Amino acid sequence: MSKAVLRRGAPIGQGQEPLICAPLVARQLPALATEAAAVAARQPDLIEWRVDFFDAIADLDQVLAGAAAVRAAIGAIPLIFTRRSIREGGEPIALDETQVVAMQQAICASGLVDFLDCELSCAAPHFQASADAARRHGVGLIASFHDFQRTPPAADIVARFHQAAAAGADIAKVAVMPRTLDDVLTLLGATLQGAREVELPLITMSMGPYGVLTRLFGWMFGSSVSFAVGEAASAPGQVPIDDMRRVLDVLHRSLGKGAMSARQ
Amino acid sequence: MSKAVLRRGAPIGQGQEPLICAPLVARQLPALATEAAAVAARQPDLIEWRVDFFDAIADLDQVLAGAAAVRAAIGAIPLIFTRRSIREGGEPIALDETQVVAMQQAICASGLVDFLDCELSCAAPHFQASADAARRHGVGLIASFHDFQRTPPAADIVARFHQAAAAGADIAKVAVMPRTLDDVLTLLGATLQGAREVELPLITMSMGPYGVLTRLFGWMFGSSVSFAVGEAASAPGQVPIDDMRRVLDVLHRSLGKGAMSARQ
Repeated sequence: MSKAVLRRGAPIGQGQEPLICAPLVARQLPALATEAAAVAARQPDLIEWRVDFFDAIADLDQVLAGAAAVRAAIGAIPLIFTRRSIREGGEPIALDETQVVAMQQAICASGLVDFLDCELSCAAPHFQASADAARRHGVGLIASFHDFQRTPPAADIVARFHQAAAAGADIAKVAVMPRTLDDVLTLLGATLQGAREVELPLITMSMGPYGVLTRLFGWMFGSSVSFAVGEAASAPGQVPIDDMRRVLDVLHRSLGKGAMSARQ
Repeated sequence: MSKAVLRRGAPIGQGQEPLICAPLVARQLPALATEAAAVAARQPDLIEWRVDFFDAIADLDQVLAGAAAVRAAIGAIPLIFTRRSIREGGEPIALDETQVVAMQQAICASGLVDFLDCELSCAAPHFQASADAARRHGVGLIASFHDFQRTPPAADIVARFHQAAAAGADIAKVAVMPRTLDDVLTLLGATLQGAREVELPLITMSMGPYGVLTRLFGWMFGSSVSFAVGEAASAPGQVPIDDMRRVLDVLHRSLGKGAMSARQ
């Protein structure tokens, strides 16, 4: 019901839907390695390093050492490198946007990561430079859009998918905040429409309490990846991986049984 | 997020959402008692006896004996008495509609059941006669609508809720078949709208494989009751009670944690 996500040409996982991605949010290097090992033990399909949480983000050597430590801890699990900007919900960092691009170029060149997250709202030259580095080094490009205030109309969300495709992304990601449950339906409907209209895999979610639905069931509407917590303490409020697997197990068994009973 | 369901003036359950209702579909009396005991052991919040599955439906004494056997087996668990018509997905029976009304009147008078399901598509005099009997004997009236072919537009679904309210029902139930996942969103959106517009509790679901979503999280959109399988064999394809509880546990814990992490 969702499209396969490719890493360097090969599909991730054995066809399970959704792929589960766990974030790393440690602030310092030893803690990062520990967190990476603990998360990897949960066997997520992907791991995302949110480098904007990393205190030493302004020290490129430290960032590369961090990526190497993560890679050593997680083995072959596909790794997403993500600097989330403040305007899209990330942490404050001591880098300007030019320096961010330089960091992204270096990390792509390092061979340590598999995917690079770039925000569609970046200045076009910055987006292009990062995207070019990803392309040059065989790193998958995730073009992302986040709105922490509201859920745009479905047409605007679908437009982001097309924008990501036009920008040459390998994956389009949209995360928006619902104010009502209607907004949750809007996100799911837009995902369904986007999955029909664009070729690339989508990652979508509604955030906040209502949004938990989309984290659990969004794959049925075409979202290829769901973010879940590897360590309970690392992202309070999100669904822990084990809980997500429990729900997915029920869903897959129910869907696998074919047509539901006509009793009710 | 859904309205309380009252039995003889008192709310069913301790505020859990949704209430879980398990159907009984045995064809003969000894099996019915066995099924009722097994289902009751799962502690659903409600039990529905689908009397159209009962071979002896044309024998009023047997029906009353069946209801008594069910009541003996389930103790105080609220019981819904439902004759689903063929045109709304039920079993063929050897009664005409006048006889059905007589059966419903007798069962209301027996004091053995707590709710009576009447289809809004019944001829008005039949619906009225059954509804009157329910009212007279303190039996809750569920006005129901089923479409096994398709999902009507949201406005039509909402109109059914208003029709149920106008008919004096205590609960409005709508079960429709989705052809696409868009239809699932339509049912959820209509439920959300209906819950805002009408006073009475709603029970809604999409059927079929896609509909499993609505069985698991339709309560967030305002559906007060979800039907689940008490015995694995009694309704293949539906979600077993234990599975439903597993999913609800995850949902409730996630919602209870308040705002989700802003990480993704």
